[in-house]
Formats: sequence, C-alpha cells, structure tokens
Amino acid sequence: MRVTAGEARTVAIGALATAGVPAEAARLQAEVLVEADLRGHHSHGLLRLPRILERISRGLAAPTAVGKHRWAAPAMLDVDGGDGLGPVVAMAALDRISVRARQLGMACAVIHSSNHLGMLAWYVESIARAGQIGIATTISEALVHPWGGRLAMQGTNPLAIGIPATPDPLVLDMSTGLISMGKVHDYALRGRRLEPGWALDASGEPTTSADAAKTGSIAPFGGAKGYALGLALEVLVGSLTPSALGTAVRGTLDSAHPCNKGDVFIVLQPASPGRVTPVSDYLGQVRQTPTAPSDTPVSVPGDGARRRREQALRKGIDVADPVWAQLRATAQSSQPDR
Amino acid sequence: MRVTAGEARTVAIGALATAGVPAEAARLQAEVLVEADLRGHHSHGLLRLPRILERISRGLAAPTAVGKHRWAAPAMLDVDGGDGLGPVVAMAALDRISVRARQLGMACAVIHSSNHLGMLAWYVESIARAGQIGIATTISEALVHPWGGRLAMQGTNPLAIGIPATPDPLVLDMSTGLISMGKVHDYALRGRRLEPGWALDASGEPTTSADAAKTGSIAPFGGAKGYALGLALEVLVGSLTPSALGTAVRGTLDSAHPCNKGDVFIVLQPASPGRVTPVSDYLGQVRQTPTAPSDTPVSVPGDGARRRREQALRKGIDVADPVWAQLRATAQSSQPDR
Repeated sequence: MRVTAGEARTVAIGALATAGVPAEAARLQAEVLVEADLRGHHSHGLLRLPRILERISRGLAAPTAVGKHRWAAPAMLDVDGGDGLGPVVAMAALDRISVRARQLGMACAVIHSSNHLGMLAWYVESIARAGQIGIATTISEALVHPWGGRLAMQGTNPLAIGIPATPDPLVLDMSTGLISMGKVHDYALRGRRLEPGWALDASGEPTTSADAAKTGSIAPFGGAKGYALGLALEVLVGSLTPSALGTAVRGTLDSAHPCNKGDVFIVLQPASPGRVTPVSDYLGQVRQTPTAPSDTPVSVPGDGARRRREQALRKGIDVADPVWAQLRATAQSSQPDR
Repeated sequence: MRVTAGEARTVAIGALATAGVPAEAARLQAEVLVEADLRGHHSHGLLRLPRILERISRGLAAPTAVGKHRWAAPAMLDVDGGDGLGPVVAMAALDRISVRARQLGMACAVIHSSNHLGMLAWYVESIARAGQIGIATTISEALVHPWGGRLAMQGTNPLAIGIPATPDPLVLDMSTGLISMGKVHDYALRGRRLEPGWALDASGEPTTSADAAKTGSIAPFGGAKGYALGLALEVLVGSLTPSALGTAVRGTLDSAHPCNKGDVFIVLQPASPGRVTPVSDYLGQVRQTPTAPSDTPVSVPGDGARRRREQALRKGIDVADPVWAQLRATAQSSQPDR
C-alpha cells in the first residue's frame, strides 16, 4: 500500500490515541516512525507501530509517561523513563538539556526504562537544525558477535551525530552491526542467501542461510574496529545509566518484556562563533571531490536520507498491507462518527 | 636497538630538555611517546621525537607553551595552544575539565594551535583510571578518501573512549582509516605490496603499490560507515574550534608548517554510582565468550595494548638505530659532565 506522509501520520496518531496516548505524545511517536519510512528506513517505520500498540495494551509501555527527571549534576540529567514511549521520554529530556547546554556549553541526558527510540537521526538532526551539536547512542538486544567470537554479545548499538551546516546539517546515524537483523528477516522471507561474512548461525558457524542467521548473530561492521566501537558504546551507556547489558537486554524487539536498555544523549553548544561557514564550505568540497568512474557523487552523512525523503514526500511511502489495515482499523475504532 | 622503557624515557627527557622544554613538560611528552612504543604503536612512539625536536628548533613548536584557557561556558573550555607540545597543552586542559566534570557532570575542552597529541589511548585511559569517562578525537592531514571518492579529503581522525572498569578500564583508540600511512611507508621500505582495497594512487586509481599509495590516499575503515564516522569527527572538531579542515590541515607530519588541526576532549562523570561492577561483569562475559576454532580469546578494547605493554616492560622496546643515536647525542649534548 502506498500512502502519503500525511495519511500515514493521521492513521498513526489515531491508532496511538485509541491506545490512550495523549495528543502531543501521539504526534511525536507518529512523526518519528513516519520520518523513518520517508527516509527509507522501513525497519524503524510504521512497521513497528503494531508492536508499540501491543506493548501499550500489555502494560509494557506507559502511554502517558514522560520520564522522571533528576539533575545528577548541573549538566547531567538522569531520566527514569517510567516505561514511556521512547520518543516522548527522549524529547522531554532533550528539551531540558538543550536549554542547559546553551547555559553551560554542553549537557547530557542518560535514560533508562524507556521504550524504543526509533531512528536516532531524527533526534540529532532536530538538535543540529536548532544550532547545537547532538550526539546520541543507545543499545539493543544482543545481536552482534564480538570480533573473533561465536555468539551475539552486544547490540547493534547505533551512533548518531548531528552538526549544524548549510544548506543542511551533517547527520550521521550508523548501526555498529554490519547489517540489520531486519535485513536478515527480509532475506529469509524472500529466500535470498546472505553474503559470506555477514552472519553466524546459532552454534557460531559462518552461514549464508538467512533462516539460520535469524537465531544466530550478525557480524560487526568494519571488523575489529567496528566491534570495539559497538562494545564501547554498550559500556558507555551501561556506565551512565542502569541499563541491562549484552544478553540481558530485552524489550526493543518483543512484546513480552519491559524495555531495559539505556540511551545517552549529549548536546554541545559550539564555542567558536562563525564555524558553520568553514564547515559547510568543507562539506561542499567533499561533495564535489572526483568520484570513481560511473559512481554517483560523494555523499555527506544525511544526504542520502534527505534525497529519499524528498522523493517519498512526492511519491508516498510503502506500508505493508496488513500493517496498514491493522492501523486503519485501530485508528477508526475510536472515531465512530467518521 | 632494544632499550628499556626507563632508558627510553631518560634519553627522551634529556633530548627535550636540551631543546628548552621544561622538566615536567619534557617528562609528559616523553611519557606519551614511550607508552606508545610499549603498546606496539611505534608510529606514535620515539620515532616522532626527532621531528618534534626539529619543530621546536624551527619555532613551529613552542617548548614552554601550555595553552591559553578561556571558559566559553562553564562546561566548555576553549584552548589556544600557542603552538605548544600536544601532550602538554592537552593535559593542562584535561586537568581543568576533569575538575569541572566532577562539579557539573561533564565538561569539554576544544583545542587549536597545538602540536600532535600522540596516542589518544593514553589520555582517555588516564581519565578512566581516575574514575571518569573520557572521549577524545583529533584530526590529521587529509589522508583518507571519501567512500566512492578518488582523493584524500579527511584525516585518519581517531576516536578514543576510556571507561572505568575492573581490573582495567575499557580503552578504545581507533583510527577511522583502514590502515595508517605509517604502514604504507613501512610496506614501501620492505618492498611489500598492499592488499587490494587498502589505498588509491595519486590519480585516484586503486593500487597495491605502497610507493604509489604514499602520494595517494587510504581507504576509510568499514566502508561507507567508517567514512561517515571519520567525516563526522572532522566536522565535529571543526565546529567546536578554529581548526583547518580537509586538505588545508598541516603540521602533524611535517617540520615545515604550524600545526593547524583541532582536538576535542570530553570528560563525563558517571551519574549512577555502582555501575563499575555490572559493566566489568559484562566485559568479563565478553572475554569468555566462545571463539572461532583456533582463534585467540575475544579481546576487549585495551586488552591487546596492555598485553603488549607488559611484554615490552620485560623485554624492552625496539627503537630504530638512527633515531636512538640521534636522541642520545642530543640528550648528552646538554650534559657535558656525564
């Protein structure tokens, strides 16, 4: 089913409202999901909304929670998410630390007991568009094996960085896994084989069977370095907030467990005025650098997502038929007059 | 020539003293270099000292400068390094922001006009051993080509993260280049060919000739993601401090130009007490995870460097004969009575 972003938002907001999510929170959660679909990150798009609704109905996600804030120190906001929706808890915290970073130069929010954030790019881009630098990381269920190891011991632990620039900010948002578990499931559905080196099976042997990889583990991106970076992010999160770690992490992919991972956001206020111009000039040089024959132009982080978004705003976004049908039915169940 | 760490320190301190570096600054600069050799990172070891001495003699490095400090905001220290020695300027700044982080929860130092830092691991490990979390990044001359690009447009931009743990901290220190330019030069000296995919020649064509790669560019690690991370770090540094960017960066590898790159250090005070134990338990689980047949045990970032250091403390470190002879001669020239 191809729908416009507006239709997608309306239906998502309606479904969330039916589940008891207040209007502003529903708008925010819907926005983060639809923006992921617009950028082509469908694994973080509306596909996730049925599970969010199920988690609310089972009491695993609290529809009205925004998080309890405690300033552990003037620049360090400790947030107990109270099982709230990830974007709702995160944006309430970001509002606080953005103000604090303007006063102090930087500030950090460490969050636990909050649900899945969705696409991190959305948060750091919004910070960068407001003139500050945003850094975000979070962890997931253990899906990635250590370099040289046989079993999943760390999450796909993404790192996102948003930095002001013209005409658009630099927006990095990268998983530290070589591929996503969503891609493994997609390959399994389509009967495609994985590339060698992408995954191990449940016993730790290399496999190109997507079905076997579903119960196994994904390789880290970039070999030993990517493994080390992903592990460092897991430990960074676990050092700053009472997050579960490694194989104990639950609740970002299921509808059975409270979400026990942590999130870390850092906002920096650029100290040197006037750095946007030289940085933007440099990014322009990078974009114009010669490319290998027949290749596309060099992209700066965020460019590809922006191009996909512009196209999807014109052409609409693809939502799986059963997902759309379910969301429409849920959304309309609370609006008997329509 | 194989020398003990003590001999290496003594000679390095002597050579720096001869060049007019005050005792404590000389001890610090020598320590950072010798510790790199001890960990097997010879490209950041004593090999660099002759160039540091030459830079001092040419007025490109100021032997007594420690940096001018200005608090741009309570948690944001802006440092004009005054062309001081990298470790001297950095440690003076780190002393300030470590105290500030204990008060505010976190603090940042942004540094410009300072010389080469050497191995970043040294800084973040010292922060972690003092119970705080350290994050460090810096940039270099453009040596790495963008993903899909043909020319070097960004530095090897390392990222280092140190996090308290028992028995030893996690210490990540990774370049965002696939290999170092030092390795390219080493291969060229030995007449070895590079692996395919490691480098491009000066015209942007793939090459396995180390000689051709010396004037070309290195691939980013981890493909598009590693490129994006390295670029984000370059822009992060350039947004926070008046650093040159891309092909305009000079002075970390030569004896002809002022060093015009920037450095960024962040210190975080863990907000949640008692997280060292669960984090350390998790790292223990990672180390004990099953490995692929015949592989070595899984390492946590910092483990390998620590093993190499322990061995080198027993067996000594290798220093190239001409480097050692030059340093000894320089060190002794100021000590006529010995």
